[in-house]
Amino acid sequence: MKGVILGICPEAQLVDISHEIKPFAVAQAAYTLAQTWECFPKRTVHLVVVDPGVGGSRRPILAEAGGHSFVGPDNGVLTMALTADCRARVREIRASLYFREPVSRTFHGRDIFAPVAAHRASGVAVSRFGGRIEDCVQLEGVEPVGESGNAWRGTVLHVDHFGNLITNFGWKEFGWIAGERFLLRVGSRSLRQYCRDYGSAPLGEPFAIRGSAGYVEISVNKGDASQLLKVEAGAFIVLKKKQ
Amino acid sequence: MKGVILGICPEAQLVDISHEIKPFAVAQAAYTLAQTWECFPKRTVHLVVVDPGVGGSRRPILAEAGGHSFVGPDNGVLTMALTADCRARVREIRASLYFREPVSRTFHGRDIFAPVAAHRASGVAVSRFGGRIEDCVQLEGVEPVGESGNAWRGTVLHVDHFGNLITNFGWKEFGWIAGERFLLRVGSRSLRQYCRDYGSAPLGEPFAIRGSAGYVEISVNKGDASQLLKVEAGAFIVLKKKQ
Amino acid sequence: MKGVILGICPEAQLVDISHEIKPFAVAQAAYTLAQTWECFPKRTVHLVVVDPGVGGSRRPILAEAGGHSFVGPDNGVLTMALTADCRARVREIRASLYFREPVSRTFHGRDIFAPVAAHRASGVAVSRFGGRIEDCVQLEGVEPVGESGNAWRGTVLHVDHFGNLITNFGWKEFGWIAGERFLLRVGSRSLRQYCRDYGSAPLGEPFAIRGSAGYVEISVNKGDASQLLKVEAGAFIVLKKKQ
Repeated sequence: MKGVILGICPEAQLVDISHEIKPFAVAQAAYTLAQTWECFPKRTVHLVVVDPGVGGSRRPILAEAGGHSFVGPDNGVLTMALTADCRARVREIRASLYFREPVSRTFHGRDIFAPVAAHRASGVAVSRFGGRIEDCVQLEGVEPVGESGNAWRGTVLHVDHFGNLITNFGWKEFGWIAGERFLLRVGSRSLRQYCRDYGSAPLGEPFAIRGSAGYVEISVNKGDASQLLKVEAGAFIVLKKKQ
Repeated sequence: MKGVILGICPEAQLVDISHEIKPFAVAQAAYTLAQTWECFPKRTVHLVVVDPGVGGSRRPILAEAGGHSFVGPDNGVLTMALTADCRARVREIRASLYFREPVSRTFHGRDIFAPVAAHRASGVAVSRFGGRIEDCVQLEGVEPVGESGNAWRGTVLHVDHFGNLITNFGWKEFGWIAGERFLLRVGSRSLRQYCRDYGSAPLGEPFAIRGSAGYVEISVNKGDASQLLKVEAGAFIVLKKKQ
Repeated sequence: MKGVILGICPEAQLVDISHEIKPFAVAQAAYTLAQTWECFPKRTVHLVVVDPGVGGSRRPILAEAGGHSFVGPDNGVLTMALTADCRARVREIRASLYFREPVSRTFHGRDIFAPVAAHRASGVAVSRFGGRIEDCVQLEGVEPVGESGNAWRGTVLHVDHFGNLITNFGWKEFGWIAGERFLLRVGSRSLRQYCRDYGSAPLGEPFAIRGSAGYVEISVNKGDASQLLKVEAGAFIVLKKKQ
């Protein structure tokens, strides 16, 4: 893919965001993109190739939001990034003159997404790639769901390099855990503790913290929360506000 | 190695092809290079450092093919890439003025290959590095071998990130599996099924597919063929044409 | 972090040194930096974010040595690199106008270290970031300790991709093992053999070698010393000179 890009746009500066998305983990990729794209300069082209449906009927799409471009499959992987900018505009990529020929059935990253991203980075206007669509696929399960009794059911979006669990409890809505009593059930454990930073937490005990990505995270001071709690990306969490 | 390159050729654009070649896996590296180099623009310098014989008597070589340059040890790792261009020209690297001093006995990547690649990228003529040789080492076992009874014995060249098994059955010669009955034995399983794309295959069943690298691959729809079949790079495969 | 850097210094050339430092492994990071920084051209900015104390009271620092700049936490991670240049000058980073706002409590890599490194790479003078300090944290245990009876106690600084054990026995001081009898105890094994290069060693037997990083290493010809000896970074070693 990088060779294809540099052949079309030699001045491109290539940055790898992550090589650690699990195969077919669309939600994990969506989260990773959502928390990184705004750190890049405007006019960056973000290329995402987590694509369980390659070779099937899913559409390739190109989106514009906040002065950035996004290229990837229409499987929800761009959803979390695009909701940050309601004026996001999504197009179906149809102009095969920007594809690498012949297009294989198994590697659209190299044959469709990479060359389209490179042409976009070279300045080709978005309208040249295809027409607007309004029905792009939305990712399910990225928002916590309210349950009875002041409780919410959420999930682990991502496990980072340190084993921290990034939940889908956004800090804007759930930041009250910093000041109120709560119970958080994850794996076979229940947590009641919130800490402001890693260093102020007791060694070995899991706790909730405000993560740098804007979500509640579950961490262990100098430990690995994922290993300790035996929890991976996709696990369910229940958060309950205590009276 | 990257620091050494940038010290010699500050305008170099560095692209990592793979950090996932197993130690000493010359055939896997050869395959990876063979399937990627032509995607890069002409005048790219490809640097390969899979080198079980570092410190021994194997020669460092510089090759030219298709407008690209290749730098690496003379252990067969360049074989698959160079056979794509019969006019490939191979030289033994002898001009130590292009080496980093002192040359260590254990890290020729940093001390010989990286600085030579950087000087080549900076425009130093190939003839400056050393004279032509005709006897460079050929990699064994990269072509399937015919057996009696319409059968061929091949190997798994590579296992990709998704667990797909890339075989050494080239599509040009073995693409007939798309239309004829066959039996493919790998690990303790026998496959009879060919699918055009991942999505059209039954969940959980291994099948053969035309891979994007130009070889027959063995895959499982949304599964991991390597895990399911308990097969790794280097494993033997028998393909049989049924009447 | 890369997005933040490119937003501030678009012409920066980003090079990843390693993604394989274990979480919180300050000594491993210190070693990795020490053996790589001098290979890069002058005016390189080295950014290190192995930071178990993020959110606590440790200071962010900026150092200058040998024409290079270093940005990271004041936890000893820069120690091994800076001792190579006694004229190293260390400053506490205090100028928050170079930070990304708001500064999170958990990701100083993105919010403090990356933007400071990018501003430094853009040419901002070192004095603008903060005043000189003389009491930066020194890393413990990076030098072998002499014991009675011509013996020294050292540690494994790092295990490389091939499973080689890089010890903290520097070649300048301990290169005598190439010519004299010795006993090296690591894990549950004792070694007595020194080899000049990998190829000249018997298959399967561990031996000592002069590593490319300037330290004694423990290796196995075409094998994995770490697996064979069941030893990881941080393990103790005893080296004894025999009469």
